[in-house]
Amino acid sequence: MRISFIGSGNVATHLAAAFKNAGHQIVQVYSPTQANADILAYHVKAEAVYKLSDLSQQVDLIIISVKDDAIADVAKNLNTTRAIIVHTSGSTPLHVLNNNQQYGVFYPLQTLSKIKEVDMREVYLAVEASSDNVLNKLKGLAQDISNHVIELDSEKRLSLHVAAVFASNFTNHLYTLAKHVLTKNGLDFDLLIPLIREVADKVATFNPEDVQTGPAVRNDQAIIHKHMDFLKNDETLLAVYELLSQQIINLYHKD
Amino acid sequence: MRISFIGSGNVATHLAAAFKNAGHQIVQVYSPTQANADILAYHVKAEAVYKLSDLSQQVDLIIISVKDDAIADVAKNLNTTRAIIVHTSGSTPLHVLNNNQQYGVFYPLQTLSKIKEVDMREVYLAVEASSDNVLNKLKGLAQDISNHVIELDSEKRLSLHVAAVFASNFTNHLYTLAKHVLTKNGLDFDLLIPLIREVADKVATFNPEDVQTGPAVRNDQAIIHKHMDFLKNDETLLAVYELLSQQIINLYHKD
Repeated sequence: MRISFIGSGNVATHLAAAFKNAGHQIVQVYSPTQANADILAYHVKAEAVYKLSDLSQQVDLIIISVKDDAIADVAKNLNTTRAIIVHTSGSTPLHVLNNNQQYGVFYPLQTLSKIKEVDMREVYLAVEASSDNVLNKLKGLAQDISNHVIELDSEKRLSLHVAAVFASNFTNHLYTLAKHVLTKNGLDFDLLIPLIREVADKVATFNPEDVQTGPAVRNDQAIIHKHMDFLKNDETLLAVYELLSQQIINLYHKD
Repeated sequence: MRISFIGSGNVATHLAAAFKNAGHQIVQVYSPTQANADILAYHVKAEAVYKLSDLSQQVDLIIISVKDDAIADVAKNLNTTRAIIVHTSGSTPLHVLNNNQQYGVFYPLQTLSKIKEVDMREVYLAVEASSDNVLNKLKGLAQDISNHVIELDSEKRLSLHVAAVFASNFTNHLYTLAKHVLTKNGLDFDLLIPLIREVADKVATFNPEDVQTGPAVRNDQAIIHKHMDFLKNDETLLAVYELLSQQIINLYHKD
């Protein structure tokens, strides 16, 4: 397939590389930020374009991978009857693309950073489409790069994205907070790596509710107060400690 | 070495198994809950005792692995000049054991559940002791079961424990919340496993600050409001979403 990208961020970068490696042709990469378009276009041997009006309509698929609130605007300005138009957002409904003829969604459930390679075959790809015909094409394409292709409607995809924000984005923020504590006390973040890996590994086999550990699940008030006293000069850390400890206590110690 | 355990919970269970496997003898396991003492004693071929007064003093090491606020009391009732007395708590200072002659701390930095095996060799073990002589003995013992033995004073060990609560206990709670969202919407928690693994894997190589992804780090207010609207009937989820999103925005979008 001949594929073009609108956007050159984390998601576009990883999807373009995966499709290129699977034997598809990346035709153009659009970004208003010239350097970003140039870098991604160079890596996937595509043409970089900096104006939407320079996008060729002679492709099979246009992947819109831009900030969520820009998707609808971008899609309105496309004028193609040939290409399927898809976006890659977890939380944007399919129908924002409905001024096009053939459209769909292609949502990779993964935390993607340009600086880190990812094995796309292990990534869940959620697809949705404007018709069975388009759906079949998108599923085939998705299966070229992932072993885990699933069909989800817009509402279920939104719920998956919300869950992913908790399990991924917020978790990474907790790692940032943990690193802050260690750095301030002259300790290295790497001390936590085996622990972090084990917590992630545990829930591949067990329900997270069944393997909760720590002072809050034991309702160990002496330790909780000692920790909160230790954190008393840092409002950010203290607010998280207090809220999450209280939630864990409420969950496991409903009188 | 001849080792006895006071306590039969998650930490005692994993340490006793590791020492047994490393060739040490587990002499007694004490728990006031008879069934718990019996199970662990059976697994490590030790004698189960249910009264502290039945603990033999003819051992080299007594490991106190009980709820943190019970450690000092237990230690006061021990009467041995021969055995080294250690506790396994991250947040309890060394000096609570100072009515004994030889004492120390043996803190495994890991989330330990009886139902899940752990490779103790990969676990950081933080040791502290009442004298250089005791410290050397404890380090030798720690190295029998772990490749990652470190020396930490009580204050640094407390900071490590606080950081671990964020990176481990709170992270697991976020997995619980994510599962709640998915279950409520008819989706399977397993969908998140590749994502959870990748988030953990990323920070083994990169600083968590440098690989933060999601709506908050993009300050994507449209998505954030959509998610908060989606969660509006669940105070628990909403409180976490609001606090952590705002913290991430503050961190990456100062003024």
